[in-house]
Amino acid sequence: AAPHDGAAAAAPFPLAELRLQRVLRESARDKAVFLHGEVTGPSGEGTDAVIILEKTPFQEEKLSDLLKKHVKLELQMRNDIYSTYHLYPPPELSEIKTTVVFPATEKHIQKYLRQDVHLVRETWEDYTQITLPFIQSQSFSVQWVYNILEKKAEADRIVHENPDPCDGFVLVPDFKWNQNQLDDLYLIALVRRRDLKSLRDLTAEHLPLLRNILREGEEAVTKRFGIAPSRLRVYLHYQPSYYHLHVHFTALGYEAPGSGVERAHLLADVIDNLAADPAFYQKRALTFALRADEPLFHKFREAGRA
Amino acid sequence: AAPHDGAAAAAPFPLAELRLQRVLRESARDKAVFLHGEVTGPSGEGTDAVIILEKTPFQEEKLSDLLKKHVKLELQMRNDIYSTYHLYPPPELSEIKTTVVFPATEKHIQKYLRQDVHLVRETWEDYTQITLPFIQSQSFSVQWVYNILEKKAEADRIVHENPDPCDGFVLVPDFKWNQNQLDDLYLIALVRRRDLKSLRDLTAEHLPLLRNILREGEEAVTKRFGIAPSRLRVYLHYQPSYYHLHVHFTALGYEAPGSGVERAHLLADVIDNLAADPAFYQKRALTFALRADEPLFHKFREAGRA
Repeated sequence: AAPHDGAAAAAPFPLAELRLQRVLRESARDKAVFLHGEVTGPSGEGTDAVIILEKTPFQEEKLSDLLKKHVKLELQMRNDIYSTYHLYPPPELSEIKTTVVFPATEKHIQKYLRQDVHLVRETWEDYTQITLPFIQSQSFSVQWVYNILEKKAEADRIVHENPDPCDGFVLVPDFKWNQNQLDDLYLIALVRRRDLKSLRDLTAEHLPLLRNILREGEEAVTKRFGIAPSRLRVYLHYQPSYYHLHVHFTALGYEAPGSGVERAHLLADVIDNLAADPAFYQKRALTFALRADEPLFHKFREAGRA
Repeated sequence: AAPHDGAAAAAPFPLAELRLQRVLRESARDKAVFLHGEVTGPSGEGTDAVIILEKTPFQEEKLSDLLKKHVKLELQMRNDIYSTYHLYPPPELSEIKTTVVFPATEKHIQKYLRQDVHLVRETWEDYTQITLPFIQSQSFSVQWVYNILEKKAEADRIVHENPDPCDGFVLVPDFKWNQNQLDDLYLIALVRRRDLKSLRDLTAEHLPLLRNILREGEEAVTKRFGIAPSRLRVYLHYQPSYYHLHVHFTALGYEAPGSGVERAHLLADVIDNLAADPAFYQKRALTFALRADEPLFHKFREAGRA
């Protein structure tokens, strides 16, 4: 087992012993904050951690409690029929979703660090000459994906699976969703085959796989969560954050991060594009945003393409 | 003084006595919820109230306390170097911003009432048989657009114009942008010709117009506001909110409403689609979201297409 799978696995991460190094990023809109911290081990050596704190959406069934059981209510402002207060709820009603990456590498820390963002319009030539060599040189680990596919992790979280080795997939809740409310429903379909990195690898050959994901994924979400297909946004990211093909399922009412036009590609459009032109994604330019500190952005800049 | 300015003004609103009628709307992303409640007066009569609860952004100076002083920390999931927890903070670290409208009228309640939103996937046949007849039957006024084009309004706000009657356009700040900061920069390019309703009318014939908008619009924004093209999201809406062809220019860092994949179409993609297939938008299905109370949604439903 890896070092972090030892004693730590039995107990929660020692949050209280974390030394806060800096705030990597915050989102006032999302009520989230990304932190870089350090934990000192028994022999005095420091290990980096990334901690993400995010306040959770309100749960409908707990709203009455929230109104009645608050610890304190302070009037802040009153004007005509409008007034504002600070309400302080008891701990059991103010859960914070906490995500820990430990041990974290410099790459994890950079991933969450706030940076200027630039659009790149990647032609197929850019892909083959800049992006693909870059992806191949990085060897990002997707072990956590293989753990799910092999049922070594999260087996109890699987919402649906199609076992076909070529056209099959596994549908699981995304890490970002705490599953307490449907408003921010977020699932991920991970394809079983391991040779598809991204949208750029897709051809008409993959239409059966993509149609399985769309149809079975929508059916599974309706069956398990009672959400109709017309209330789901089903899409791929380009660039993805990891290069094992996956599809995002989010509640339509939830403006999920990464659902913007500069990153998301509706699966229904991808299917139609491939049906109209089997080599669509080996021909066409694709736009995406890169942070100024990302190595891939430097590659585009070096090539005079950003 | 109005009744609500009496005794209530001295004390906080009696939240605990509020009877929760229903949830009007919730935003999982913003961690906010809009409630309709009723307060029973001394003589037994009920008075409506709207209550808005919104979790607050993290305060940097309180982060260390949050990590150290939590009441409880529950492990939810562990996979490789990633783990997620539920963290329960003490009340003083979990303030909720509470806004009360009291007494509230029916209009206040309607204002906050959410409507279900559904995706529609519109084929070309749907467009000609459902959407186009609907648009034509509505005769939406775009007089305000003509006022700008004829310089009867907002003439002093024009950022750039190309006077060509066929391939020209006017670039103006959008109403939603107050022009006080560049973070949420938002401009609109309005085409001069009056025969283009939406994306659905575009063919290869319009490529010169579209290329003018993209190139000259980006140049004008760089010149006037110092924002490089790589930091701009340039796109059309489908469905648009008015049927006179226009293009949105927003700051990339600003997640503008309507910039999601279910409504926005990057102008660069539109140009490439038309260059590859002059009749792209007269062939392909387009996805968009409609609120359940919108007349167009009823038309799709009547036709069995939603």
